[in-house]
Amino acid sequence: MDMRVNIERLKQDLEELGRIGRDEHGGVSRPSFSPADFEARAWLKKKIEEAGLCYRQDGAGNQFGRVECQGKTVMAGSHIDTVPNGGMFDGAVGVVAALEALRRIMEEKIPATKALEVASFTDEEGNLVGDFLGSRAFLGLLDESEIRSGRTSFGMPFHDVLKRTEFTADGILAAHKERPELEGYIELHIEQGPVLEDEGVPIGIVERIAGKHYRECAFIGESGHAGTTPLELRRDAFLGLADFALKATQHVAVKHYGSMLTIGKAALHPGSFSVIPGRADFTLEFRSASLEALAAIEKEVFALAEDIASTRGLTFASRVVDKTTPVTIAPRMLKLMEEECRTLGYPSMRLTSGAGHDAQILAGACDAGLIFIPSPDGVSHSPAESVDWDDLEKGANLLLRTLVRLAS
Amino acid sequence: MDMRVNIERLKQDLEELGRIGRDEHGGVSRPSFSPADFEARAWLKKKIEEAGLCYRQDGAGNQFGRVECQGKTVMAGSHIDTVPNGGMFDGAVGVVAALEALRRIMEEKIPATKALEVASFTDEEGNLVGDFLGSRAFLGLLDESEIRSGRTSFGMPFHDVLKRTEFTADGILAAHKERPELEGYIELHIEQGPVLEDEGVPIGIVERIAGKHYRECAFIGESGHAGTTPLELRRDAFLGLADFALKATQHVAVKHYGSMLTIGKAALHPGSFSVIPGRADFTLEFRSASLEALAAIEKEVFALAEDIASTRGLTFASRVVDKTTPVTIAPRMLKLMEEECRTLGYPSMRLTSGAGHDAQILAGACDAGLIFIPSPDGVSHSPAESVDWDDLEKGANLLLRTLVRLAS
Repeated sequence: MDMRVNIERLKQDLEELGRIGRDEHGGVSRPSFSPADFEARAWLKKKIEEAGLCYRQDGAGNQFGRVECQGKTVMAGSHIDTVPNGGMFDGAVGVVAALEALRRIMEEKIPATKALEVASFTDEEGNLVGDFLGSRAFLGLLDESEIRSGRTSFGMPFHDVLKRTEFTADGILAAHKERPELEGYIELHIEQGPVLEDEGVPIGIVERIAGKHYRECAFIGESGHAGTTPLELRRDAFLGLADFALKATQHVAVKHYGSMLTIGKAALHPGSFSVIPGRADFTLEFRSASLEALAAIEKEVFALAEDIASTRGLTFASRVVDKTTPVTIAPRMLKLMEEECRTLGYPSMRLTSGAGHDAQILAGACDAGLIFIPSPDGVSHSPAESVDWDDLEKGANLLLRTLVRLAS
Repeated sequence: MDMRVNIERLKQDLEELGRIGRDEHGGVSRPSFSPADFEARAWLKKKIEEAGLCYRQDGAGNQFGRVECQGKTVMAGSHIDTVPNGGMFDGAVGVVAALEALRRIMEEKIPATKALEVASFTDEEGNLVGDFLGSRAFLGLLDESEIRSGRTSFGMPFHDVLKRTEFTADGILAAHKERPELEGYIELHIEQGPVLEDEGVPIGIVERIAGKHYRECAFIGESGHAGTTPLELRRDAFLGLADFALKATQHVAVKHYGSMLTIGKAALHPGSFSVIPGRADFTLEFRSASLEALAAIEKEVFALAEDIASTRGLTFASRVVDKTTPVTIAPRMLKLMEEECRTLGYPSMRLTSGAGHDAQILAGACDAGLIFIPSPDGVSHSPAESVDWDDLEKGANLLLRTLVRLAS
């Protein structure tokens, strides 16, 4: 078997999809359940049907195209939603390449002992109620309260968003009942980081996906007049945050090399030129591919925060927003993908995914694999997001051959 | 002469005025040109007229009550606007005590060789286009462009605000032409800091008013995915700000003891959990009673910012928003106020005002004096702002006697 994808057809599909939700900044704005997302969903349904696959959509809006067979199901996919002002490759590459792979398998009439499905999962980017709505619904991992009474990232109650769609809370919560028994899941994705490009390697075989920990935090001190309160008498909440940001980052860099810690958002209160900040709110996230490191970072950085608060006459408060645990890819999948890489003659390397992917959720139901292709300049979630078409062809060929191996 | 103010009448006036603009948080919200401010202005006009003073208002909305005489004018006053959710004493104390002093002078038919005026200056708190709009207009110190095309702190073009009032840009810019020739100006104000209370002294004779320097600043780096960009490759703008905040504060505390440096507001961009901040905008203000220290701080902290930017692969940018120079109170005024304190038997101490006051503007037109009374717990610009009525009586008596000395 020396079967390859049709890169021209794959490229044309990606470009067609990439024109849906094109925004005024030259990016793609296609958050889940936006008009652009519904336009992209209609496009995908048409493409699946044109390919002769059996189309279905579950109660969570996850879309599938199936090649029927008696056995378990081998699935490949990703997502077609984007962050606001994102790019045309994050997610889309994995869905369109899976569709192309299934088209080629049907065209070549490859014998299979298992069903095959392309999948596109709802709201991987977490525009609605946290990341991975679709794949979590598919696995039955949703918390009922977040669906029935959650608020979206743009502040609207989720049930009000649902009213404008064909979907319901009941349907989302029941979506997992429609899940076929899975043999395996493979996802092709852009790396979203600089490693493959730096190493000059076209294929990344992900062996671990980092877990992450999101908290909303605050240092609380005392506000006061910036002209009349001597520096040595202040309980300046922002200086507590500044001290914490530097020490916590340094701690993770030195003691947990390879793990990440980021303060992405901060607000000082009351927030004016001449008032000492009495409160500094901020977001804190840290990630690690190691469960032990994640637990250690949690313990150490919050002890550090309490220590800084105590030294500076402040109090520290925090609230967990989200936690995911690191995922280790099944050795069987790594072996299979690496064998196919060697057959294809593609250089590959193992790496850790710092970003989250639907594959880490699917890993709860079956062996899941994740293939990366390079992100030029490490850029993603941006209009400047791109791929090298040769790399994409290699990644799609690897996806195709891995699917064939899993289904045979 | 052993003349004193009528503290009961003064207290009643303050309490009446303090009920205007009372907000739901128990504070006073009476920013200049708000409906509550106009209500307070009408109240003051009535009080001035009831006292038998000659009322006038200039083109900038500064309100005056005059005891006519041939000679130069001796003026006392402050402001009746407040910050949003402020207190009932900041500013109000100086206007109401000056009104009471003039009432007592008239009641006692004290012979004077100079005219006397109570003054209430528009927008000392800078709700509209920077601090001291009224007193700067009175001195002819306004920049024409800030009046004709400036924006208010709440984002509305100032000329749109003016349309809702009886005032015009032309009128504000011409207000200084109505200024009488001044012999001196005295202002009574709450300290807004902890010094007098800590020292147990009821009267502060201000000998210097700090100058200040306001800038809007930014560190600019590169945003990126918080899960995929290694810590050592980041150009995190917030870490630049954190580093700067700690080092600049420490520098001022150690090298320029008594001077202040405050970062009161910060915003990170794009501002989300999982994106490394590519830009950190912040406000920086520093103050000192010494012109040399102010100049040194300016030079040193911006060199520090550039140094941090360069070390961390960032760029630093800033824009001057406002600068005021330190003011030294005329020795003649200090001597006069201290003599009257001794006569009254009140303990007093000299101090520096870290906060700005209309007196520092008036010092450009005549010898200006500034009297402080203690701020319990150092609190101001807050619903918890208060005074001890005994201290207020002492401050008002000193104001009255100093006015009589200046006018005789």
